[in-house]
Amino acid sequence: MDGDPPQVVIVGAGFGGLWAARALAKEDVAVRLLDKNNYHTFLPLLYQVAAAELEPGLIARPVRGLVSRQANARFAMADVQRIDLDQQVVYSADRTFPYDYLILAPGSVNYFFGVPGAASHSFTLKSVEEGVALRNHVLRCVERASQLPEKEAGERQRLLTFVVVGGGPTGVEFSGALAELLFQPLVKDFPELRLKQEARVILLEATGRLLQGVGGGEYAQRRLAAMGVEVRLNATVAEISADAVLLASGEALATASPIWTAGVSGAPLASEPPLERVRGGRIPVRPTLQALHHDNVFVVGDSVYLEQDGAMLPGVAQVAMQQGDHAARNIAAMRLGLPPQPFRYRDKGAMATIGRNAAVAQVRGRLFTGFIAWLIWLAVHIFFLIGFRNRLAVLLNWAWDYLFYESAVRLILPNRAD
Amino acid sequence: MDGDPPQVVIVGAGFGGLWAARALAKEDVAVRLLDKNNYHTFLPLLYQVAAAELEPGLIARPVRGLVSRQANARFAMADVQRIDLDQQVVYSADRTFPYDYLILAPGSVNYFFGVPGAASHSFTLKSVEEGVALRNHVLRCVERASQLPEKEAGERQRLLTFVVVGGGPTGVEFSGALAELLFQPLVKDFPELRLKQEARVILLEATGRLLQGVGGGEYAQRRLAAMGVEVRLNATVAEISADAVLLASGEALATASPIWTAGVSGAPLASEPPLERVRGGRIPVRPTLQALHHDNVFVVGDSVYLEQDGAMLPGVAQVAMQQGDHAARNIAAMRLGLPPQPFRYRDKGAMATIGRNAAVAQVRGRLFTGFIAWLIWLAVHIFFLIGFRNRLAVLLNWAWDYLFYESAVRLILPNRAD
Repeated sequence: MDGDPPQVVIVGAGFGGLWAARALAKEDVAVRLLDKNNYHTFLPLLYQVAAAELEPGLIARPVRGLVSRQANARFAMADVQRIDLDQQVVYSADRTFPYDYLILAPGSVNYFFGVPGAASHSFTLKSVEEGVALRNHVLRCVERASQLPEKEAGERQRLLTFVVVGGGPTGVEFSGALAELLFQPLVKDFPELRLKQEARVILLEATGRLLQGVGGGEYAQRRLAAMGVEVRLNATVAEISADAVLLASGEALATASPIWTAGVSGAPLASEPPLERVRGGRIPVRPTLQALHHDNVFVVGDSVYLEQDGAMLPGVAQVAMQQGDHAARNIAAMRLGLPPQPFRYRDKGAMATIGRNAAVAQVRGRLFTGFIAWLIWLAVHIFFLIGFRNRLAVLLNWAWDYLFYESAVRLILPNRAD
Repeated sequence: MDGDPPQVVIVGAGFGGLWAARALAKEDVAVRLLDKNNYHTFLPLLYQVAAAELEPGLIARPVRGLVSRQANARFAMADVQRIDLDQQVVYSADRTFPYDYLILAPGSVNYFFGVPGAASHSFTLKSVEEGVALRNHVLRCVERASQLPEKEAGERQRLLTFVVVGGGPTGVEFSGALAELLFQPLVKDFPELRLKQEARVILLEATGRLLQGVGGGEYAQRRLAAMGVEVRLNATVAEISADAVLLASGEALATASPIWTAGVSGAPLASEPPLERVRGGRIPVRPTLQALHHDNVFVVGDSVYLEQDGAMLPGVAQVAMQQGDHAARNIAAMRLGLPPQPFRYRDKGAMATIGRNAAVAQVRGRLFTGFIAWLIWLAVHIFFLIGFRNRLAVLLNWAWDYLFYESAVRLILPNRAD
């Protein structure tokens, strides 16, 4: 027998990769976790960074701090360039990571369905960098509008119109948080504007209902309307230009701020031979989460294409965590000569917050709305927020916002993505 | 009489500008506060951002939030391009701000005394942007060192050597905080390195004593040495290259991280006619803080050249606050037809923290060192930290670090200055 434990390389320190690493803690393997950032991002709260409610650092945790207590795991900050599936080696710009088992958890990237101008003109919400860039942009638009004379009414209106594309959880949550920012703390900050009359938040959804897959769409629509968000259903975006969002109906919404939350696809990963990709750029896998032609390669999280009961599994944190955990267990089984087991997703629910005291939560098939749903949302997010100090700091921030109708971090801080 | 109140334009929302705006709250004037950022930076704690102890947002407060309760004050985010002192107009890129009284509080910028390579190769600590860039750089250096094989010992050593130039408060405080970061949390984060043996923090001071102007230099030197900082007195920097700091003695210190804290000069401001500049790029003023040839122009803070009892006033927050306040009072006096009064700085003390439980504090001529000085330092900084939530959050962060020997924010977050 070989004295060295087998190498398990994990690409990506999101929910899937991190949960896989943790599930291997007690196995006799050497875990090598790779990510291009040195932090794990708690993406479910990114919209609050973009709405100036939370500091970016509060939704990010250093990966090394998370795995340093795990004796068999090491982290390396590395941007993976190429994977040789035959030689079993992962390449970064300046290093090589040979593996016995590979877990791919690269996550997803924004996807624009070929809508002209969408990729180049939209703001997006898939990374801390994008969240901070959007926050800076929103605050700059209001600042610039406040410096324009009244007679430039058209440009003022364009700067104060925010168009959110996509009525899923991210679109609903960001629209609500943005309306709270504009119509509460910024009203006080900008006495030279009449934001309550002048600012517009428009949420566009291509289907006939918000929050598909979560439920509570009608409730969310009513609540958003009460908060000042204009919700438009069956509104398809035909094109996005530098100064407007064009609808399929022919209508043009003049805006300096199109925010795209309408789609993602599996993150690209260069491998030899290439892994097959299907709908949404996702990688099809066997029920065991193994790649189709490579027994020792597992794929987990947003980049996986896997159906269950006839429907594709959604790209949410819960699926990624359960898959990461499952891939790790299958590697442990294979090490013992046992067959890997098929993955089965256990849906514990879905939720979206809409604003102060208002949310939608679907828990094991039961739908809750309003304050009770908001409390569920709060409890779940605090529970899963990684790192105790972050939990405390986020709670403190929220308590403050809640008590004083304030928004913490209205700072236009330097950011490379600007 | 004219119905409109006179316009007071204040350039810069640092300590000088902000205190001037506040002191005008009850006067019958229209205050217009300008800054290129939309936030006020609490510079005395910037070194903690660079040492990954505090989130950047915790030392920055939105200026609009600070002045929004002051009925006669308005803020505009504006990068001042030019000032016409004859026409009495301040120009930004796209706006004009006419004034009756002008308070210039542009602060200071890094100054390198013509040392070759210093400006292009050094990291500095004068803005949130620079603080975050330095934090990212330090963490990247350690990360890169951890990925180098043992045989590349020279490059590993260079990446793990940090050379701080300047033994004033900023240099002493940053050296101490950097040593605490490297020799405590990062030791746990990087089991693949032996940071306690491999990492070096070297503090260079050109004179024979640390903390000139504060006192307690010998105490600071002993404490820093105990924390693992190599303090070198009478060490003059001759040149800084991309991979080393060269001393006048001929010695070369191989480093990827020269950090310059050794000098500042008055921030540039283009005016017509130009304001005279003297030593350190500072603007000489009359004892009343009025510009030499313009009765209605006041200069306050780091950019002022003013002597008191034969010595130049130091570029510290206290001087700026007192001058901002004084300039505002003189404007109020002039409005009543009274003569402006000469400024007199009342030195309430000076201090520097060196690390856990250790500081130097000079209060009204008495020198304190050690734990008691650290408590004084803590109380003063918490008291002056603007914004109640920030105070609470910073205290929470510090308490956590203190109890758990942890460092909060070891994140390499995107930043434009990188």
